[in-house]
Amino acid sequence: MALISPSRRLRRTPFSDGVEAAGVKAYTVYNRMLLPTMFRSIVEDYHHLKSAVQVWDVACERQIELRGPDAARLMQMLTPRDLSKMQMGQCFYVPIVDETGGMLNDPVAVKVAEDRWWISIADSDLLYWVKGLAYGYRLDVLVDEPDISPLAVQGPKADDLMAAVFGDGVRNVKFFRYGWFDFQGVSMAVARSGYSKQGGFEIYVDGTANGMPLWNALMEAGKSMDVHAGCPNLIERIEGGLLSYGNDMTRDNTPHEAGLGKFCSTQTAIGCVGRDALLRVAKEGPTQQIRAIEIDGGVPPCDRAWPLMAGGKRVGQVTSATNSPDYDTGVAIGMVKMTHWDEGTPLQVETPDGPRAATVHEKFWI
Amino acid sequence: MALISPSRRLRRTPFSDGVEAAGVKAYTVYNRMLLPTMFRSIVEDYHHLKSAVQVWDVACERQIELRGPDAARLMQMLTPRDLSKMQMGQCFYVPIVDETGGMLNDPVAVKVAEDRWWISIADSDLLYWVKGLAYGYRLDVLVDEPDISPLAVQGPKADDLMAAVFGDGVRNVKFFRYGWFDFQGVSMAVARSGYSKQGGFEIYVDGTANGMPLWNALMEAGKSMDVHAGCPNLIERIEGGLLSYGNDMTRDNTPHEAGLGKFCSTQTAIGCVGRDALLRVAKEGPTQQIRAIEIDGGVPPCDRAWPLMAGGKRVGQVTSATNSPDYDTGVAIGMVKMTHWDEGTPLQVETPDGPRAATVHEKFWI
Repeated sequence: MALISPSRRLRRTPFSDGVEAAGVKAYTVYNRMLLPTMFRSIVEDYHHLKSAVQVWDVACERQIELRGPDAARLMQMLTPRDLSKMQMGQCFYVPIVDETGGMLNDPVAVKVAEDRWWISIADSDLLYWVKGLAYGYRLDVLVDEPDISPLAVQGPKADDLMAAVFGDGVRNVKFFRYGWFDFQGVSMAVARSGYSKQGGFEIYVDGTANGMPLWNALMEAGKSMDVHAGCPNLIERIEGGLLSYGNDMTRDNTPHEAGLGKFCSTQTAIGCVGRDALLRVAKEGPTQQIRAIEIDGGVPPCDRAWPLMAGGKRVGQVTSATNSPDYDTGVAIGMVKMTHWDEGTPLQVETPDGPRAATVHEKFWI
Repeated sequence: MALISPSRRLRRTPFSDGVEAAGVKAYTVYNRMLLPTMFRSIVEDYHHLKSAVQVWDVACERQIELRGPDAARLMQMLTPRDLSKMQMGQCFYVPIVDETGGMLNDPVAVKVAEDRWWISIADSDLLYWVKGLAYGYRLDVLVDEPDISPLAVQGPKADDLMAAVFGDGVRNVKFFRYGWFDFQGVSMAVARSGYSKQGGFEIYVDGTANGMPLWNALMEAGKSMDVHAGCPNLIERIEGGLLSYGNDMTRDNTPHEAGLGKFCSTQTAIGCVGRDALLRVAKEGPTQQIRAIEIDGGVPPCDRAWPLMAGGKRVGQVTSATNSPDYDTGVAIGMVKMTHWDEGTPLQVETPDGPRAATVHEKFWI
């Protein structure tokens, strides 16, 4: 791995002091912000995530706030998921597409009030698309990046740690719901969500100044639970089939190709951009789709798309891959053509270290 | 410096194989793409850039192509710079602003034909803003990211190296003009431009497959000129006052604050977004502006805004800083309030290593 050069442009977060004190070893850059990728080692972080509890600096899930009379209309324009029955207190995973149905982002939308929404974004400047639409349609809405920074608490002991800091009421928050909880006099939205399959919460930390006090409170309260600073873990997220925008799907792909057709109620999502294109896709079905790919023989770091081959022809590509200690195999996420996407199909994947035998699976490991 | 984790999301470029073979030591991430920041050392790269010639992988200056009947109208909507007299063969540095006059990017626009433009962008997903506007205004224009990747040749021997590969005609290309030149049967736009003050060119390499052949041809032809792989150099760019979007100005700033008022002909840039706000700014003038900041006593790496203080009050901030071997002082770029922006004003800058004496200058070093 090469080094990453420091600059203001690669933004620090409200939790960076804590991340550094915890001995972060590597970063990626996500929404022009530093996102830790490794503390002790990827494998040690992985085992710990599955057995204890971690605090994650995911401030890079920047927020976009829509506020005003046209906020709900604009939010529905952004996504083919039908939001008409969404309640306050709910979080929705929403594919965002352009006019051709190509994915621009796959954020979580939070309905704060009828006229106020937060969008907790994946890695692209969705703000620019939202502002462009709002301006072009002359909508009566404020679009901005508020000083809200998500902090995740993930792992099997997440409920206990959160209860120790926010009170037992937090245990009652249901999956992809949120409630308002007090921390040192500041009310913060706490959702049961997060980028792992181990369970946990995301706290929408209100105000940069509240970042380190909350980080420290969680670390202090979690001592008896073996709490550690952590981060989205490459192995666990691939085992769990958690997609990464920019890795596993891009603007070239529709939500249907990404396996997100179930989040597209395009017929009833009145006014959404890309509706015409997606209705066509929904009718015909995608011709390629995301699949779990098992790889034999060990894989190197995946920093580019690896061709998936069958009989000398390219039938797809792997975009995320690593070696799984728990499943004792190479685990990967790939996009596979319909001719070869059935469960158990044997393929070959071309890695920089040479070809490897691969098998298509319809379900991920976790 | 921490490590950077590999992933497909941090995109490789058509020149990455050459960059790696040349022993790149550090990267930044720019438009979700790897941008080298150091080969031998920042200081060794710096001296070499000023004395010889370097080939830079700046593919991260991604292109946006506007094509169609409304391309020119859309291009003028994007910027307060008057494009009405711009000719084919010209490149214009164009501030791009939102409806409030806040900067979204500061790219170079290339007029390829009356109905075809390229925008060579700084670090933000300007594509999303352009697509949003085009969609909202129902413009008759195609907006996309073409397979065009800039490769820069910079340094005092740049003319000689370029002439060896593209022929002597390239010597006649004027500053911020471009011409079409042949490389192995492919016609490519070659502009006299680049992110250094040492002179040189940017080649708009057409087609990923042509990347490494051109890289290798330049390296081969430049052997007698001591050519090396290089990259935008932190020291040289600060000495030269070359601004970096995301470091030295953000969406919070107007072009006037960034010292780019001379590129705003807002009165005649009919139809540009942000016109009302910028006409007001142009009338009243900015209340803070970019300045060269000289710092005594050595500076650490600048990874966040450093407060600029006068008499215990914050009067600005430093956003890029390093130590200059040639000028034997700390060199920096800062934003300073009008009360303290005059030449020679003494200030104090709060670095993570402690306070330093600083002096405001109206001109940069190079």
